Amino acid sequence: MTPTTGDRRRTTSVPDLVRDAREGHLRSVARLVSLVEDESPLLREAMAALTPYAGHAHVVGITGSPGVGKSTSTNALVGELRRAGRTVAVLAVDPSSPFSGGALLGDRVRMQDHATDPGVFIRSMASRGHLGGLSWTTPQAVRVLDAAGFDVVLVETVGVGQSEVEVAGLADTTVVLLAPGMGDGIQAAKAGILEIGDVYVVNKADRDGADQVRRDLRGMLAMADRREEDWRPPIVRTVARAGEGVPEVVARLDEHHAWARRTGVLDARRRRRARREVESIAVAALRGRWAGLHGHASLDRLADEVASHRTDPYAAADRLLAGLDE
Amino acid sequence: MTPTTGDRRRTTSVPDLVRDAREGHLRSVARLVSLVEDESPLLREAMAALTPYAGHAHVVGITGSPGVGKSTSTNALVGELRRAGRTVAVLAVDPSSPFSGGALLGDRVRMQDHATDPGVFIRSMASRGHLGGLSWTTPQAVRVLDAAGFDVVLVETVGVGQSEVEVAGLADTTVVLLAPGMGDGIQAAKAGILEIGDVYVVNKADRDGADQVRRDLRGMLAMADRREEDWRPPIVRTVARAGEGVPEVVARLDEHHAWARRTGVLDARRRRRARREVESIAVAALRGRWAGLHGHASLDRLADEVASHRTDPYAAADRLLAGLDE
Repeated sequence: MTPTTGDRRRTTSVPDLVRDAREGHLRSVARLVSLVEDESPLLREAMAALTPYAGHAHVVGITGSPGVGKSTSTNALVGELRRAGRTVAVLAVDPSSPFSGGALLGDRVRMQDHATDPGVFIRSMASRGHLGGLSWTTPQAVRVLDAAGFDVVLVETVGVGQSEVEVAGLADTTVVLLAPGMGDGIQAAKAGILEIGDVYVVNKADRDGADQVRRDLRGMLAMADRREEDWRPPIVRTVARAGEGVPEVVARLDEHHAWARRTGVLDARRRRRARREVESIAVAALRGRWAGLHGHASLDRLADEVASHRTDPYAAADRLLAGLDE
Repeated sequence: MTPTTGDRRRTTSVPDLVRDAREGHLRSVARLVSLVEDESPLLREAMAALTPYAGHAHVVGITGSPGVGKSTSTNALVGELRRAGRTVAVLAVDPSSPFSGGALLGDRVRMQDHATDPGVFIRSMASRGHLGGLSWTTPQAVRVLDAAGFDVVLVETVGVGQSEVEVAGLADTTVVLLAPGMGDGIQAAKAGILEIGDVYVVNKADRDGADQVRRDLRGMLAMADRREEDWRPPIVRTVARAGEGVPEVVARLDEHHAWARRTGVLDARRRRRARREVESIAVAALRGRWAGLHGHASLDRLADEVASHRTDPYAAADRLLAGLDE
């Protein structure tokens, strides 16, 4: 059985989909992820049905600038995890693309190495951004993959911009990838990645400048304001294309997971993730209500007044909120 | 008088600041922008006081990947606009940086060309992200600069990721910068910039590959799903460092502005901008209320239940919203 993102028209009940997904039917897993991506009306029922089964996967975020070798590294990690007998789901989140066409094309290219392996599920997800964006969709897609029983869920994002950093920060363990020749010295500081990495990987370590990247990174990490003081993030050198260093990355991920579990950091992160998710869903629900409001408190009318400088935005927001209570 | 971002401790009333800003005191303009950046409690009063004076500036968004020459192009545009006798405010928004230290350093470097010109105000703004992020702060900072009387407000963002595209999309006119050798062919499609540009600029046009970038872009624009069908975005070639092509960019900006005004597109965009701003402020207010909730509907308690898989996130969001009404 191979993963698929197509065939969304088939009508199957949510309980059937959840049961099939938990029995390892990748097609059902894919359809549940599609419910998330499509912001389906069935999503609510699906999340309720999946919730009791969630909480077992190690959720690993992987982020880095374009060109550092994220796809190659992810594929190499998948291979290494499979050799250790673990099942793996990859969720490639593309915050910069509101188009799913590109994402699907990406899937096909990326799946080649693992196409015949039923223990691997790979799926790209675009953010249509209708509702809460990535902070809304990512945790729900992760819940699908977690509840489906995968041992490890890899969430890959492009590490530029705040939303991506946020997505990466929602994982149990976050891997930040760098590579020589990418101008990452400056980019690292800018993108806030010094705050979010639990494991740093300098990929393309056989190239000139890799040692310099590592030294710069070490120096910056020493000065950075880290969220947890007693985990010193390791820096691993890899040549992902050749598989070099990849076993060490997996070892460090496991170390971090064990440490986070032991210290309560894992629970704290999961609470933070849940907090943002609940808030995002509530905000999306409110946006729906606001869009449906009529009369003097309707969002369209208030926007008109602000755009024509008759009302200031705070007064308009007050009236919008007051309209909710009417 | 030179712009400054310092001296925030001075206590001046909001009406005084607004009056001074409108009289051309750049220091007061800077302090009003700081109120936005700092998410000051005075912001509400400031926005109400500024609102009657806003609506006259041409708000131009400038976006592009790192390395295309955004700062150089912005500086060249400022110079050209000044030669035409227009006053210019530049708001450099850095969505990837939650740190304002870097932004301030950037200011100093960037201001050199225009440091003694009272008709130019340049300010970088970091997103602390405490409240609604860039969609929250950018329109308010633009309102300050608009109400202060600048003829043109240039909003410069790094064009990677959805939030940046959104910020750029909030302008009256959006300029998308590209350059040869940046891999922009693929990046352009990914970042959604094909949907948001009103004027495209291929900078570094004296380099190899510039014509190819232009051809690729023209081909992609022909296929893109444009938001307005009757404006065909021009592609201008520039060498910003030498000022080449910059007068043509200004001419195209003016053309777009006139077209947008004539067709109602300008009003529609401003309503959309206001809509998002009002919504962001309302959401920020709700987040504040949620954070203060106690008992069974408190966000912390709900997040706990979701993180431990006792409640699904939709049920939790329902209870959060119900708690608002209690």
